[in-house]
Amino acid sequence: MTFHFGILCFPGVQQLDLTGPYEVFASARNATVHLVWKDLKPIRSATGLVLMPDTTFADAPSFDVLCIPGGRGVNALLHDEEVLSFVREKAAAARFVTAVCTGSLVLGRAGLLTGRRATTHWNSMDFLPRLGATPVEERVVQDGSVITAGGVTAGIDFGLAVVAELMGNDEAQTIQLSLEYAPAPPFNSGTPATAPRSILDAARARMAASRREREVLLS
Amino acid sequence: MTFHFGILCFPGVQQLDLTGPYEVFASARNATVHLVWKDLKPIRSATGLVLMPDTTFADAPSFDVLCIPGGRGVNALLHDEEVLSFVREKAAAARFVTAVCTGSLVLGRAGLLTGRRATTHWNSMDFLPRLGATPVEERVVQDGSVITAGGVTAGIDFGLAVVAELMGNDEAQTIQLSLEYAPAPPFNSGTPATAPRSILDAARARMAASRREREVLLS
Repeated sequence: MTFHFGILCFPGVQQLDLTGPYEVFASARNATVHLVWKDLKPIRSATGLVLMPDTTFADAPSFDVLCIPGGRGVNALLHDEEVLSFVREKAAAARFVTAVCTGSLVLGRAGLLTGRRATTHWNSMDFLPRLGATPVEERVVQDGSVITAGGVTAGIDFGLAVVAELMGNDEAQTIQLSLEYAPAPPFNSGTPATAPRSILDAARARMAASRREREVLLS
Repeated sequence: MTFHFGILCFPGVQQLDLTGPYEVFASARNATVHLVWKDLKPIRSATGLVLMPDTTFADAPSFDVLCIPGGRGVNALLHDEEVLSFVREKAAAARFVTAVCTGSLVLGRAGLLTGRRATTHWNSMDFLPRLGATPVEERVVQDGSVITAGGVTAGIDFGLAVVAELMGNDEAQTIQLSLEYAPAPPFNSGTPATAPRSILDAARARMAASRREREVLLS
């Protein structure tokens, strides 16, 4: 039996939202990971890395796990009916409907977070209630078949949690060891609660333009 | 002033060795990250993700940071004089010569680890002495201008350490917060010391073929 993972790959995606879970999923036994978009043209991610979709909305198979990563490019998806319809359609057939980072906002706009506990990047948590979800400040949040992750690097923790759900703890632990995932951040600034105030202000400033745009799109 | 990061992008690279540091470097102010290879053809990584080099050995600029990721594809580089010469040439002009995971073996084969403290993926640590290096079981190891990281996900810790060296702690901390890097692995199997014995055996078995090949190449 092969498990099919489908990750949405769109212009302006935060590549580590996608490549972190990809590496965990693709390291599993009997897994096929698809990058899916409207067409097969190269995609420029938010920080410049070019990604190549391997299947299209029209050709995509059913997915055991549907995963929506986040990034600046999410803004353009929030009113894109072609994308939202595709997400709804694939979600209906998936065992797990998932998102990393601000990919949760896309799930929300598709109506898939209504009444669900969910998480997203810390700088977008306040958008979740507008989309009918209950925000939870945890790294990975599971509510039934919906699994969401916090910002960017949370996608690795999330990937292991999804593999554990789908294939068992031994498979997830074997992948964790293969990827030597025993993280040791050199600083303690990974969340607004632990970062110095000046660092929080600097990070917010860098994300301000995208956030302002998102506020209008979700108002 | 722009900092130039050059990451070697080769067939069979472990994509997260590359995409983790890429996301950290590319999130920095005034940074340009290049993926460099012999030509510009699409590259298939070890787990399938396709990457696109953006510059060639012939056209690459000088790099402030040269970074060699690891992966199964490292084996083909260990006796590739074109690659080893390129690495030596770019290393001579770089401020920091770095590797993630088994990328250290390429630095070693290029003669750049002689007499240096260094690290690599846990399953390749015993190769370092054969390459003249002193193995150190730490997540990120700096010896002068040479910075090496442990397996795969260590590249994120490493990326932050490199940015801190080059641009200061504030920049690294701002990136850490933007990427919400406050890891929370769902299991404690990230190193051979903490993983259950059965998990260690399973992980070793998955890497056995590549390791046997490497033993011959480095004998």
